[in-house]
Amino acid sequence: MDITEYMHAMGRRARTASRAMARADGATRNRALLLIADAIERDADLLRAANKEDMEAARAGGLEPALLDRLLLSDGAIKTMVEGLRQIVTLPDPVGEITNMKSRPSGIQVGQMRVPLGVIGIIYEARPNVTVDAAGLCIKSGNAAILRGGSEAIHCNRALAKLVSEGLAGAGLPLDAVQVVDTTDRAAVGALITMPQYVDVIVPRGGKGLIARLMDEATVPMIKHLDGICHVYIDDKADIAKALPIAFNAKCHRYGTCNTMETLLVARAVAPAVLPQLAALYAEKQVELRADHEAHAILAGYPYLKEATEQDWSTEYLAPILAIRVVEGLDGAIDHINTWSSKHTEAIVTEDYSAALRFLREVDSASVMVNASTRFADGFEYGLGAEIGISNDKLHARGPVGLEGLTSLKYVVFGHGEIRQ
Amino acid sequence: MDITEYMHAMGRRARTASRAMARADGATRNRALLLIADAIERDADLLRAANKEDMEAARAGGLEPALLDRLLLSDGAIKTMVEGLRQIVTLPDPVGEITNMKSRPSGIQVGQMRVPLGVIGIIYEARPNVTVDAAGLCIKSGNAAILRGGSEAIHCNRALAKLVSEGLAGAGLPLDAVQVVDTTDRAAVGALITMPQYVDVIVPRGGKGLIARLMDEATVPMIKHLDGICHVYIDDKADIAKALPIAFNAKCHRYGTCNTMETLLVARAVAPAVLPQLAALYAEKQVELRADHEAHAILAGYPYLKEATEQDWSTEYLAPILAIRVVEGLDGAIDHINTWSSKHTEAIVTEDYSAALRFLREVDSASVMVNASTRFADGFEYGLGAEIGISNDKLHARGPVGLEGLTSLKYVVFGHGEIRQ
Repeated sequence: MDITEYMHAMGRRARTASRAMARADGATRNRALLLIADAIERDADLLRAANKEDMEAARAGGLEPALLDRLLLSDGAIKTMVEGLRQIVTLPDPVGEITNMKSRPSGIQVGQMRVPLGVIGIIYEARPNVTVDAAGLCIKSGNAAILRGGSEAIHCNRALAKLVSEGLAGAGLPLDAVQVVDTTDRAAVGALITMPQYVDVIVPRGGKGLIARLMDEATVPMIKHLDGICHVYIDDKADIAKALPIAFNAKCHRYGTCNTMETLLVARAVAPAVLPQLAALYAEKQVELRADHEAHAILAGYPYLKEATEQDWSTEYLAPILAIRVVEGLDGAIDHINTWSSKHTEAIVTEDYSAALRFLREVDSASVMVNASTRFADGFEYGLGAEIGISNDKLHARGPVGLEGLTSLKYVVFGHGEIRQ
Repeated sequence: MDITEYMHAMGRRARTASRAMARADGATRNRALLLIADAIERDADLLRAANKEDMEAARAGGLEPALLDRLLLSDGAIKTMVEGLRQIVTLPDPVGEITNMKSRPSGIQVGQMRVPLGVIGIIYEARPNVTVDAAGLCIKSGNAAILRGGSEAIHCNRALAKLVSEGLAGAGLPLDAVQVVDTTDRAAVGALITMPQYVDVIVPRGGKGLIARLMDEATVPMIKHLDGICHVYIDDKADIAKALPIAFNAKCHRYGTCNTMETLLVARAVAPAVLPQLAALYAEKQVELRADHEAHAILAGYPYLKEATEQDWSTEYLAPILAIRVVEGLDGAIDHINTWSSKHTEAIVTEDYSAALRFLREVDSASVMVNASTRFADGFEYGLGAEIGISNDKLHARGPVGLEGLTSLKYVVFGHGEIRQ
């Protein structure tokens, strides 16, 4: 079988199914989600068996423990998938809303209607729960989906695909509304990201390596972020009682997440007071500090201290390592961030009203915060109800992307026979 | 001079200027616009002289009359440019608005702030007025701009660039906020569309040939449409008194515009009544009708009649030619449109409530209309106050794009020391 033709055929079926999905009302789409949740509960044993096959093959193939951990479909993971689907059902229908309706001098009325994007391609690693999460969000938003999960999870994904199909069928929706790519051939990914005639947007969920590779080749637009080099700036007007827990939480709450702080900026005036107190907190977690010359002098004697190089300003450690730089003040901080940040999330700690407003306005990142930990940059924390991904790009969705990011606004015109003069 | 290095240097300056533009308040940006308008009025003679140089060179080079016509900077065109700038001043500031502010259970407040995209690249043909229009919209929306106009207009564009600089300087804004590419080397375009590190979005304004070429090479996202294959569908429940003027206006108001109807669909039940009456109107304008088999039989005897081929369903004539197809009813019309349309603008003529709603919902185009001419798909007619272009794409801006399309929404978080639990 030619893999490109296989993917194109899948794309054509998805395009056709997307029209039926766009027509379906919200109640029907919710019904499908509930049926899928029920089917997963009912067939939990089958899913565990399929996952066991994947796990055994992966172990035999020498998959590393961290990835084995992700591949495992535990009882808790099954319960979370089911609850996730039922949670999506409770969210408002993102489709069909008409906003900004205006009457124009010509007599026409013009508004914008929120509609599904069409066909969403999701590319992810060997995490079976993503299959259900992504299918759920696409169904809820009236889109068709093509899912391509990591090859190590193929048995489990096949079993989940069967249950998703059952739910779609039970609600009277087309089976092709959610298709799982049933081949481990990597050429399938190459085809999926280069068929804009069938796929409207790609959402890659995975590590930087995966996304960088896709960015090079994709001709379909992507909702993605490459990395999260997030900053906290402790201003000279910061309340130290807020600065210490925020800087600690932003680094140490979780090391491997994209909204974790990687570089701390401290105003010169408060650096001698703040840095030693912070170091005492970081020392407990054995966080390595890579300090610029000025910070290094202040921190002399800290057990895990190194000199920072320029390389550190653009490194996403995803580890208990933190770059530290002393800046003159607000302007220096904004300048450093707009130069080195990956435009994901930045926070200022300050009690100065004007400094806070300037930071919010002038820092060019997807999320900009005052007196809060960067770890809040998250679809659930922002109240989106769900998160399909995070975007560092400026066009379309920016920051955490929920159901709305899987829709677009088209213009609708209500006329009464008007013609253009 | 190496052209890539020239463009990269321009990009770096634009990026730096974009930060100052994002900081500038609306009053300052408006002041620059008014100063530019005044300078153009004052130096109208100089502009005419520069344009005369361009016109003479173009005539000597054998430029065709239609393009010479566009290149000409008439007194009327100068007046329109000046009025356009003063009109942009009266529009609300698109930057800085915060919407959707919500308090979250964690204690943080989250909203979305509208901010400039950053650096906009505009690529256009030899129409000097676009230089001023585009500069005006970019300044108003707080962006920096790099303008690359057709080489035939180089003298006039240089003169205009000088006046734009004068206005920026007078308002205290950086001169690099609007840069005009001062070389006729076409490699400049290739560099501009492949430097995403400096340019956030490209807006091409020109014919299909230009845009298709850019689409092949660009790595910077574009706000664009390739063509406008627009449809009017006359439903079996249409009011004929509305259908005739709409179908006539959509085709004959202007032939060369992207929102002109190229294919007319007619429900079988009303085709024998509607088509001869319409043909009588089209005959006055000598519109060639390319009819499918069924319509051809009804129209027998029409003086400019041809048989349609499948090729006609995907052709943008931009001329007094119209494809006509008889369809069974609403489903057939939606199916034809979603298969053949360029997703620009489509209209239904009907008095049937459910048919109107289904057409609005199910037709997957940037503008969808009921009982109005497709010619209304336009930023001014929609009340956007200005139009930088039209997008047939689904991500980011869709349909006519005004100032808002040159901005994005970033998340802003107002905290009080919150950390993630």
